[in-house]
Amino acid sequence: MLLIKGGTIVTAERSTRSDVLCDDEGRIAAIGPDLDCPTGCEIVDASGLLVMPGGIDPHTHMEMPFMGTTASDDFFTGTAAGLAGGTTSIIDFVIPAEGQPLFEAWQDWCVKAEKSASDYGFHVAVTHWNDRVHTDMGRLVHEGGVNSFKHFMAYKNALMIDDAIFLHSMQRAGELGALCTVHAENGDAVSFLQAELLASGETGPEAHPRSRPAQVEGEAAQRAIALASLHDTPLYIVHVSTREATEAIAAARLKGLKIYGEVLPQHLVFDERVYDTTDWLSSARHVMSPPFRPKSHQQALWGGLVSGQLQTTATDHCCFCRTQKERGRGDFTKIPNGVPGIEERMSVLWHHGVVSGRLSPEQFVAITSTNTARIFNIYPRKGCIAPGADADLVLWDPTATRTISNKALHHNVDYTLYEGMTLTGVAKRTISQSLMVWDDGTLRAERGKGRYVRRAPFGRI
Amino acid sequence: MLLIKGGTIVTAERSTRSDVLCDDEGRIAAIGPDLDCPTGCEIVDASGLLVMPGGIDPHTHMEMPFMGTTASDDFFTGTAAGLAGGTTSIIDFVIPAEGQPLFEAWQDWCVKAEKSASDYGFHVAVTHWNDRVHTDMGRLVHEGGVNSFKHFMAYKNALMIDDAIFLHSMQRAGELGALCTVHAENGDAVSFLQAELLASGETGPEAHPRSRPAQVEGEAAQRAIALASLHDTPLYIVHVSTREATEAIAAARLKGLKIYGEVLPQHLVFDERVYDTTDWLSSARHVMSPPFRPKSHQQALWGGLVSGQLQTTATDHCCFCRTQKERGRGDFTKIPNGVPGIEERMSVLWHHGVVSGRLSPEQFVAITSTNTARIFNIYPRKGCIAPGADADLVLWDPTATRTISNKALHHNVDYTLYEGMTLTGVAKRTISQSLMVWDDGTLRAERGKGRYVRRAPFGRI
Amino acid sequence: MLLIKGGTIVTAERSTRSDVLCDDEGRIAAIGPDLDCPTGCEIVDASGLLVMPGGIDPHTHMEMPFMGTTASDDFFTGTAAGLAGGTTSIIDFVIPAEGQPLFEAWQDWCVKAEKSASDYGFHVAVTHWNDRVHTDMGRLVHEGGVNSFKHFMAYKNALMIDDAIFLHSMQRAGELGALCTVHAENGDAVSFLQAELLASGETGPEAHPRSRPAQVEGEAAQRAIALASLHDTPLYIVHVSTREATEAIAAARLKGLKIYGEVLPQHLVFDERVYDTTDWLSSARHVMSPPFRPKSHQQALWGGLVSGQLQTTATDHCCFCRTQKERGRGDFTKIPNGVPGIEERMSVLWHHGVVSGRLSPEQFVAITSTNTARIFNIYPRKGCIAPGADADLVLWDPTATRTISNKALHHNVDYTLYEGMTLTGVAKRTISQSLMVWDDGTLRAERGKGRYVRRAPFGRI
Amino acid sequence: MLLIKGGTIVTAERSTRSDVLCDDEGRIAAIGPDLDCPTGCEIVDASGLLVMPGGIDPHTHMEMPFMGTTASDDFFTGTAAGLAGGTTSIIDFVIPAEGQPLFEAWQDWCVKAEKSASDYGFHVAVTHWNDRVHTDMGRLVHEGGVNSFKHFMAYKNALMIDDAIFLHSMQRAGELGALCTVHAENGDAVSFLQAELLASGETGPEAHPRSRPAQVEGEAAQRAIALASLHDTPLYIVHVSTREATEAIAAARLKGLKIYGEVLPQHLVFDERVYDTTDWLSSARHVMSPPFRPKSHQQALWGGLVSGQLQTTATDHCCFCRTQKERGRGDFTKIPNGVPGIEERMSVLWHHGVVSGRLSPEQFVAITSTNTARIFNIYPRKGCIAPGADADLVLWDPTATRTISNKALHHNVDYTLYEGMTLTGVAKRTISQSLMVWDDGTLRAERGKGRYVRRAPFGRI
Repeated sequence: MLLIKGGTIVTAERSTRSDVLCDDEGRIAAIGPDLDCPTGCEIVDASGLLVMPGGIDPHTHMEMPFMGTTASDDFFTGTAAGLAGGTTSIIDFVIPAEGQPLFEAWQDWCVKAEKSASDYGFHVAVTHWNDRVHTDMGRLVHEGGVNSFKHFMAYKNALMIDDAIFLHSMQRAGELGALCTVHAENGDAVSFLQAELLASGETGPEAHPRSRPAQVEGEAAQRAIALASLHDTPLYIVHVSTREATEAIAAARLKGLKIYGEVLPQHLVFDERVYDTTDWLSSARHVMSPPFRPKSHQQALWGGLVSGQLQTTATDHCCFCRTQKERGRGDFTKIPNGVPGIEERMSVLWHHGVVSGRLSPEQFVAITSTNTARIFNIYPRKGCIAPGADADLVLWDPTATRTISNKALHHNVDYTLYEGMTLTGVAKRTISQSLMVWDDGTLRAERGKGRYVRRAPFGRI
Repeated sequence: MLLIKGGTIVTAERSTRSDVLCDDEGRIAAIGPDLDCPTGCEIVDASGLLVMPGGIDPHTHMEMPFMGTTASDDFFTGTAAGLAGGTTSIIDFVIPAEGQPLFEAWQDWCVKAEKSASDYGFHVAVTHWNDRVHTDMGRLVHEGGVNSFKHFMAYKNALMIDDAIFLHSMQRAGELGALCTVHAENGDAVSFLQAELLASGETGPEAHPRSRPAQVEGEAAQRAIALASLHDTPLYIVHVSTREATEAIAAARLKGLKIYGEVLPQHLVFDERVYDTTDWLSSARHVMSPPFRPKSHQQALWGGLVSGQLQTTATDHCCFCRTQKERGRGDFTKIPNGVPGIEERMSVLWHHGVVSGRLSPEQFVAITSTNTARIFNIYPRKGCIAPGADADLVLWDPTATRTISNKALHHNVDYTLYEGMTLTGVAKRTISQSLMVWDDGTLRAERGKGRYVRRAPFGRI
Repeated sequence: MLLIKGGTIVTAERSTRSDVLCDDEGRIAAIGPDLDCPTGCEIVDASGLLVMPGGIDPHTHMEMPFMGTTASDDFFTGTAAGLAGGTTSIIDFVIPAEGQPLFEAWQDWCVKAEKSASDYGFHVAVTHWNDRVHTDMGRLVHEGGVNSFKHFMAYKNALMIDDAIFLHSMQRAGELGALCTVHAENGDAVSFLQAELLASGETGPEAHPRSRPAQVEGEAAQRAIALASLHDTPLYIVHVSTREATEAIAAARLKGLKIYGEVLPQHLVFDERVYDTTDWLSSARHVMSPPFRPKSHQQALWGGLVSGQLQTTATDHCCFCRTQKERGRGDFTKIPNGVPGIEERMSVLWHHGVVSGRLSPEQFVAITSTNTARIFNIYPRKGCIAPGADADLVLWDPTATRTISNKALHHNVDYTLYEGMTLTGVAKRTISQSLMVWDDGTLRAERGKGRYVRRAPFGRI
Repeated sequence: MLLIKGGTIVTAERSTRSDVLCDDEGRIAAIGPDLDCPTGCEIVDASGLLVMPGGIDPHTHMEMPFMGTTASDDFFTGTAAGLAGGTTSIIDFVIPAEGQPLFEAWQDWCVKAEKSASDYGFHVAVTHWNDRVHTDMGRLVHEGGVNSFKHFMAYKNALMIDDAIFLHSMQRAGELGALCTVHAENGDAVSFLQAELLASGETGPEAHPRSRPAQVEGEAAQRAIALASLHDTPLYIVHVSTREATEAIAAARLKGLKIYGEVLPQHLVFDERVYDTTDWLSSARHVMSPPFRPKSHQQALWGGLVSGQLQTTATDHCCFCRTQKERGRGDFTKIPNGVPGIEERMSVLWHHGVVSGRLSPEQFVAITSTNTARIFNIYPRKGCIAPGADADLVLWDPTATRTISNKALHHNVDYTLYEGMTLTGVAKRTISQSLMVWDDGTLRAERGKGRYVRRAPFGRI
């Protein structure tokens, strides 16, 4: 048992001075201004700290096989890094191998993820369509505790699906009460531009953003929304990085459609100038999709978060080391797409969101945890501070600063996007399942301690 | 003391089965799944009922002198009707007489409102500008507990201000940490169209909507937002009734501006066809500003509420009896503007919002109570169910139905807009200051029991 | 030779009282206020008439094999009907059979079209992609006098292409200086909805519009524009029928993109209520794609034409008789898609456009003839009244009225959409190649008199 | 008489190799490919040159009394400079002194303008409202040959009108068939911001743009359009400089409203960085209203011109010499607002519009001359090359270049915005009233040769 004393609870709704008692089952037992300390209960001093729901990162790719290699953070190292940054749950992605049945792929991923240090769940990617997919979607929802499916409109000849498959999957998800999520970039256009760039001798990483300009994302977002609107199917658009996609989402929501959007902190902070360098490796380390954009898009993303038209933040954490990035020397289309960020996320958002005055602490909790828990139907177990909720908490020091250095981070990759950036707002302590797993610089992440979080389908059908 | 047992607490955030204990100071003492009943405590059975924060109506005009007469509901009858409908607080408007100092007007209104049955507060209208206004705004904030000021862009030669006054007031409000609210219709245009219609012999109430077409509201909303954007001043637009204004608000919010919008249930439910009758009185009873609109605007208003771009609902409750409406026989510009609705509001919104599937119960709480409390800075005292919050609650029967009939309502006016409409969702019991003031058909409103609710200024400056 | 005396020349630019002398080569020889009559020259009295460039219909399907049958108007009957309505040129479509090389298909169509009574040209459809298509596009431009290619985003498993093919074709067209045109409806979505409707027992023609709702067109227009924007490729969107597509075009043009839109008069005049009947045949006779829309879309289409954001009008003339329409009894997806209209077009647009006050006579000429000639690069040979231009003229009676009756029309099909509609504005006489082919009720169309009009590529590359 | 041989006529509609014969009445006598030279007729060699309608500048302020001084170019020097740049007509503004009747002011201006070297006309400003204004508007239209009235939403306590006056004037203009034009900036907001900036010690010219940010223009444009929409009154917005105003105009036009927009070349070419200097005079010389904007607005202005949503270009030519600008040392609100540009306009637009590939030569003619002539109802007398039209022509060398230097310009002011800018596209010769007034470097402008051009009202009422 753990008694957190003297802190200020911040939820998506409000801030209150209150203690929190965590029980031995990993749940919150009581909340109140001056809780008594049960016998044998450890006391944590939270004076001057904010007690917030642990972060949920709904978009990670731990040890994902991708582009001929495998992401370097495994489920243990990646989730451990998350804990050090105040993130206590992830939702990762099951990506079936070519032709692999979805349920089987999910089983594989379950095995891989057993080593997780924090709680976790899965979105399952629908990459093709046949009766087996239809059946497996049902099994995943009813037996597997999966309530969201992922769709790629990009990555032609690999993960990309066409609109017909997307519609079949939307229909099936609707029947099952599951949520469709989508990577919105037009894969045909990307592929065409890649070929054109390569043919004209543009082989370096600076060609990457030119192969995926903003309208390629805007188009796909618009299209996904149009397809979803046919039967008013809820839709969650991952890593929104453009003004075009943000405006499409806002316009759809204003029509009453249930469209949600996710933002990555890196897109809020960095822009296309990251590719404006002669340092191949530095540029390659920023190769992710969607790419970093012209600065003008950032205002739209912030506006989306502030106004509630974009609801969540994630990282798309997907690590590739120098030697992995080097696979794309001479051909930018072979640079493994992905960047790290799970450990940095919350500090980056506090600093650039809250300290800058754009977001209130309550909104910070909403976009780092509560909204995600709601949208993926694990609220109030997660994303909430209330009796009965999981005791996944972060004790946040709102005024402490730290300067990011890869050496001090816990992920298994050889760089951070934020190297040298000084941020105000630090996860002082992280509590997962009532245990203090990150204690002011000391990481006590335990391999295999994380639990698979089953997510029930939604009531609507 | 009052123990509410067996109900489901619904807040803006979530729903939980839980009991609620209300203390003798009119506050919530405890919340929990199975609370013990203190000695002498009355038990209220809430089985099958939703326990929600009492409604807050931020836009009423009780006993307002207007257009040569005075609104027929006084602070007692009007707030009593509110209690019967589940509304436990109002924010009314102090409207200075011509040349009257603001502080003095506020004092007058405080006297009038002493008879209120429920808690109440005031917005104070800024209708002119001079040093005294500047000074009085400060006194009202610091001494009067007022944190919002009202501005009329309509009602030429009466309440209307020009943009210069609006800017002065915005600046002053910004200094004081007070919120500007605005009635957004272009008064010059309205006045011009009124004269034109009268000159062409259009004297009946059906000319009223033609004197205030949608673009007259859209223009003013756009203008108010532009003025507010000059210094990023927060702005609250009352009774948004058009697609144009809704889109202007949504666009501004997407830029990160702090713009809020309020919707009236009558605009969601009725359209311009209410004026399409030969029954003069029926038409005159629908004369309010802004008027009822073409049906196509309703989709935008619902979209705004559902997506969170419009945040609150109010009634603009302002009652005029038949003889008062008759003042405008032969000249529609003399029909006192206003309609009743405080008692019907919550049922109308539950039926058309929740039962129709547009809104969740949590969203219903948000738009009838919590959002208003937050925006006007009385959260978590109001709009919240938590220990320490005011014990202002409504016990809601989500499946009961009632057919609206003016005979059964408690306001002091001779009609209701909703006559004969059958609604699902009924305020079964209302609790104000820990007292059961509405008990399944029995109204126990007490004259003068309501308290003035001081509202603190906002931290931002 | 023909001397047209006493009329008022109306061009896209201005109106002038002037005579027109047409020479024996089928061209305009002179223009002037009081031209002398050369010996042997016939005089046509144009007093009270407007002398306008003959209409150009850039979207017809004469004797097209489609959906298992063949459009009933052949190149003779169809163009003859056009002449009777004031239209002196068409641009029809070459649709390759499955697997057929484009150039060969074009050759087939050239043979079929030899019977035309008026001048004609072709767009050639790109329905698949390989090296042969790439080569044939070049031959068509350089040898065939074709400067526009058509792309179908609809008609899955038949004419539909994916985005990759579209991009290849755009690139090739860009190289060649040819214009891409597109039928913008999402074929995957249409096909999905069709299957769904049939499965639920919706087999009648009233299901047709439900299988192609407005967002299916809006999405595709948006997508086509996004693809075109990648390399600033000019794009012409045929039969724009929705607000969504109109707004997408206008927004793109405001960014400086070269996007053009075409409107069909039937979409301006009729709405979805045409399917609201128990008369199967009447409903089936309105089955075309895109279908008739909710009335609210018409305002956007008119706004597009009036503001110049939509530039041309066409008919999509594609006739199917009762027995052909009957093929779709019991399965609306088998009803041959298409409606007649070439003869009615200009009267419909004069009546609903000019008489209604929306368009000036000069704008009428622009949208029925001149803009089309410019966009498809046959200006000033066509669409122009100037020395050297083709003597293709219509002598228009702006105040005469006629009531449309299928009996009085010259097309080869057993109905007209406009049966019984009384229109003001009538083609009194039509001159093609200096010959009076339609003379106040007498049609002198000559089989095979029409010439193939070669269209040069554009300078841009 | 003058025979222009061997040139290429470019009109808004098309380009043709053709000669032009100008008669002794100052009109075009004939057009044709190989005109005979009448006896005594001078021949002008136009080989390699484009023969275009002379430019019309619909927005100049010659010798205007303003802000305590008078614009330094008088009607002679200003129009002479215009001729040297290819502009053969201006429309200037009659600005009544405070309380001065409109008709009397117009008479004053007529006297001043008698010295003009080129043809000219007037817009008359409506700066107040009473019966006399109502009457004078009628006299101006019927006796004065004025068909457009100007309205200032800016310049508080000077020229600014409120919305009521604007509506009265719109109504009266509608009756008379006259066009309303408007300077769209919110004068209350400007005045407020000016006071605020001065109060905070911001007294230099760099405060000028901060006192009139983009939303101040966007708001006013939106408002003016909303007012015009009440009775579908045509409206012409002068010097559109922002994305906001451009989008408002485009949206209105797409609804079918008759809204027109004018752009100044300086706003297309320069941006707010002109104020980013420590050189007070340089900055002050760029003080005009609306001010130079952030660069991102330029794309919208170009998009507006290219798509036809903005129709005309003007200069707002209003010259103040160094000593005049110095009046505002220490108080930016006292710097006389205005910049020169009449002589540079056409070269600037050819270079940045045509040479850059944005506009065709035909579009250049449209936006520098023809559209203006149409909108202000002097077409086809002006803006047209046709028999009977005024022989006001510019012989344009499309490939010649020149470097702008104030020394070489003919206006009466001591600077040009374009000093040192090298432009391709030069007015080689200018013909006004059949006379060669600018001949390859030699200016033969004649004082008083210009004629007042009466403009008839529009047919619509």
